[in-house]
Amino acid sequence: MQSRIDAWFLSRLSSFLDGVPVELRLWNDVHTSPSTPPIATVVVRDRATLIRLLRRPALAFGQAYSAGRVVVNGDLVRLLEALNRALGGRAYEPAPRRAANSLASAKDNVHVHYDLGNDFYRLWLDEAMVYTCAYFEDPGATLEDAQRAKLDYVCRKLRLQPGDRVIDAGCGWGALALFMARNYGVTVRAFNISDEQIGYAHARARREGLADRVTFVNGDYRTIDGECEAFVSVGMLEHVGPSDYPALGRVINRVLDRRHGRGLLHFIGRNAPMEFNPWIAQHIFPGAYAPTLSEVLPGVCEATGVSVVDVENLRVHYALTLKHWLERFERHAEDIRAMFDDAFVRTWRLYLASAQASFASGDLQLFQVTFGRADDAAQPWTRHALYQTPAHGAL
Amino acid sequence: MQSRIDAWFLSRLSSFLDGVPVELRLWNDVHTSPSTPPIATVVVRDRATLIRLLRRPALAFGQAYSAGRVVVNGDLVRLLEALNRALGGRAYEPAPRRAANSLASAKDNVHVHYDLGNDFYRLWLDEAMVYTCAYFEDPGATLEDAQRAKLDYVCRKLRLQPGDRVIDAGCGWGALALFMARNYGVTVRAFNISDEQIGYAHARARREGLADRVTFVNGDYRTIDGECEAFVSVGMLEHVGPSDYPALGRVINRVLDRRHGRGLLHFIGRNAPMEFNPWIAQHIFPGAYAPTLSEVLPGVCEATGVSVVDVENLRVHYALTLKHWLERFERHAEDIRAMFDDAFVRTWRLYLASAQASFASGDLQLFQVTFGRADDAAQPWTRHALYQTPAHGAL
Repeated sequence: MQSRIDAWFLSRLSSFLDGVPVELRLWNDVHTSPSTPPIATVVVRDRATLIRLLRRPALAFGQAYSAGRVVVNGDLVRLLEALNRALGGRAYEPAPRRAANSLASAKDNVHVHYDLGNDFYRLWLDEAMVYTCAYFEDPGATLEDAQRAKLDYVCRKLRLQPGDRVIDAGCGWGALALFMARNYGVTVRAFNISDEQIGYAHARARREGLADRVTFVNGDYRTIDGECEAFVSVGMLEHVGPSDYPALGRVINRVLDRRHGRGLLHFIGRNAPMEFNPWIAQHIFPGAYAPTLSEVLPGVCEATGVSVVDVENLRVHYALTLKHWLERFERHAEDIRAMFDDAFVRTWRLYLASAQASFASGDLQLFQVTFGRADDAAQPWTRHALYQTPAHGAL
Repeated sequence: MQSRIDAWFLSRLSSFLDGVPVELRLWNDVHTSPSTPPIATVVVRDRATLIRLLRRPALAFGQAYSAGRVVVNGDLVRLLEALNRALGGRAYEPAPRRAANSLASAKDNVHVHYDLGNDFYRLWLDEAMVYTCAYFEDPGATLEDAQRAKLDYVCRKLRLQPGDRVIDAGCGWGALALFMARNYGVTVRAFNISDEQIGYAHARARREGLADRVTFVNGDYRTIDGECEAFVSVGMLEHVGPSDYPALGRVINRVLDRRHGRGLLHFIGRNAPMEFNPWIAQHIFPGAYAPTLSEVLPGVCEATGVSVVDVENLRVHYALTLKHWLERFERHAEDIRAMFDDAFVRTWRLYLASAQASFASGDLQLFQVTFGRADDAAQPWTRHALYQTPAHGAL
């Protein structure tokens, strides 16, 4: 009797997969038999997990995978990509709408993810410690080259000139700020609220002899003051939250040079408004949100009359970046297990794999939005300069 | 006594100019004396006009200029550009929000502007009759070259392949549709509701031996059916109206190939939501609206999950395009006066000059939005191909 109920639960779960060929297998070897060769076998280890999967699939899958109560035999990324394509956003239960991130909650949210230890991130990021989407001039480029190319691409889009003052909001471990100062002769004030990252970036600036031209500030974007010719934010907007886009817009409008100020926002976005997968929202990026362009632009640009010059969607570059990260992560899985534990390794494996799948399937986007003052007469005629041989020798 | 009142009206009008150096001069030679050399002298011919200028400046200026009751001695474009920069949108009284354009009112609105006679437009457009923003690879390029470059740029952004089916919504005199068929080996169905333009385009397709590959349809965009690999609309969205952006989005979603469909919208836009100058809205483009990106994207792209791939702002190209048009217009002013009358020449001079000034000052934008199906795996890695030597021999 019990096994007939299990089989019924299993068939319910199977019908939810909407034709994606997956073999589902229970603790008692009850299993489905997909008509086409399955991408993977998903083993459910106990009845409680099976029931949770039926009730809240997206959240329960992540939690059970982390806990080892669900095991995937086969290609995890391919499986998640196929599920994304088949289900779209239908797998995501609506998440409760988050409150605005206060200065304190913003710091807590960032601490959870970015203060896991620089030694951990060093194991699987590129040598410059860039934890955002790279730019592959060619899909065969190395991750190191692609991250350098991204940093340079951002500088080109910003049309940096020697002597420019740059503000970098959400600077990570400082790679972009240092790159700009080193290769474009600018001075940078770079802001971040991750203590671990700011400490690392400080030390790096001193070690590289750039401490007089790059200042790392442990502070929230809302506290940014001063003036700049260029404002850049790579991978921070996801943590700002929609209710604070106008606050970000006011900061940009306040600091940006009135005549020739330019800016660039680089962020994970969506084609249509949607919350993050609830497991990601609870366990990986608390307080984060990936917006559509039309959610960002009114507050950040339109309210202050700043002009959108260029928008580029680099989602395929993020899928490939994540593929590199996941491969490096797997190569160091034993080290990471020693630093943390089994559950941590599984959690981060699933996070990186699901992110790769989401960018590959077009579920997530990566937008670079370049903007400037509305009447900037120095705007170049065409984009040709973005696609010519590097102007400086560093690359 | 009367002249003291006139002088007071004059000082009120002068204070409205917010420091822009203009000499204002009345019918009775009462005049202002700007402290810096004036850009131009604006002569107001009678008291009724002076009072109307004070009450509704943007509308009254255009109407009085058309009627010859206001005369500008000096550089009209420079004057309008300086006023735009000084006043921003403050010169525009809020216009009553238009109702949606029905099929009939859309046709009426288009008739007013685009059915003025092909002979008229031929006098001052390029040889291919392209009445939208050109693309100047170099600001010294000829208008003919820049329009050809624009057509080719649109084809590149659409990644046209031989055999593709293209739908062109709002095709003008057919230049783009014919260019695509001739140079990219595609078939095109092109829609328009201007009888004059469709007639011209038909004849042109037959004359150029392209009638088997380009079909011109006298029909509203809402009636478009069938399927296509590429959907393009250059200079039509301005006439759609915000309440119908979702209708346009549904048309695009219905006709666009599910796997690899791409599209491009090219339209006059704004940095922040604002109606057209009321004189333009009443006398030049009834029913038209220049939207912000965030007004367009929810209905056209986000509601159907279509992915924004690329956005480019070409406003400086439109300022230069309009400079060319205005110069050609002035060279043929006598012919145009003979076709119409003095008031028509003045009306169109002011329209072209004010449009040039608005794009130059950053008051108006020109957006090209490229989009595609969310999971299109054929999307190229980078934009490099857009900026390489033309692939075909026609340029």
